Amino acid sequence: MLSNNFKNLEQKTPSDSPLELNKVIDKLVYNEARLIPVITQDASSKAVLMLAWMNKEALLLTISTQRMSYWSRSRDQLWIKGETSGNVQVLVSMSFDCDGDAILCQVEQSGAACHTGRADCFYLKVDVEKKQVSIHNTTKKLP
Amino acid sequence: MLSNNFKNLEQKTPSDSPLELNKVIDKLVYNEARLIPVITQDASSKAVLMLAWMNKEALLLTISTQRMSYWSRSRDQLWIKGETSGNVQVLVSMSFDCDGDAILCQVEQSGAACHTGRADCFYLKVDVEKKQVSIHNTTKKLP
Repeated sequence: MLSNNFKNLEQKTPSDSPLELNKVIDKLVYNEARLIPVITQDASSKAVLMLAWMNKEALLLTISTQRMSYWSRSRDQLWIKGETSGNVQVLVSMSFDCDGDAILCQVEQSGAACHTGRADCFYLKVDVEKKQVSIHNTTKKLP
Repeated sequence: MLSNNFKNLEQKTPSDSPLELNKVIDKLVYNEARLIPVITQDASSKAVLMLAWMNKEALLLTISTQRMSYWSRSRDQLWIKGETSGNVQVLVSMSFDCDGDAILCQVEQSGAACHTGRADCFYLKVDVEKKQVSIHNTTKKLP
């Protein structure tokens, strides 16, 4: 979406002084439920593991602990990834996008990222020629 | 979010018959603005290029043309990626996630993915130790 705060950052270069993280976090564009989408990517394989959501609390917790935490929209509560399953995600790198309305996190994933036990959540593969969707059981990573 | 339609797919395996694409698209979980988030990833480098949104029309157009189209929330209109800039994205593969509320597309990107001219949109890098954000000018890919 439009954000003048991030519009002002477009012309900055790597040689400019870094920004204070807390100030940038305050300017991120959260939706009407005060959530921001987060893409979680495996830092080694570069596979996209999942898309989830954070509120400011989950974002600050992720930064302070370097373990991924989200806001569970289905349970309507803070969700420390892997707290019950053990399939934790250690934060490797984090970046915000040009509009300040999306976050990309690279992680070290323990076990499966998906609640179904699959390595990632994007296992419904589209065949655009045949107009079909098939299931791909992506293999779990070894611990 | 919760979707019984996708819940029912969790136990399916690659040996099960493929599903009809149109039926799956009808069951995707769109938000209150009838949009679904789309992660666009470079098919070669695996870099995450951007997070954008599609409505059903943009999704069907993307599938039929194999060129990425989105719904521009800032302009409130269909957005055929690269139509004015030439920085088109050719669809290589598409998949839906376990909850049916996110799409992952791998693409061949021409030129820059980001409207700022950068190769991707995630150029605001967080330093979690120093609590700072710095600009990374990711290089444009050659045409």
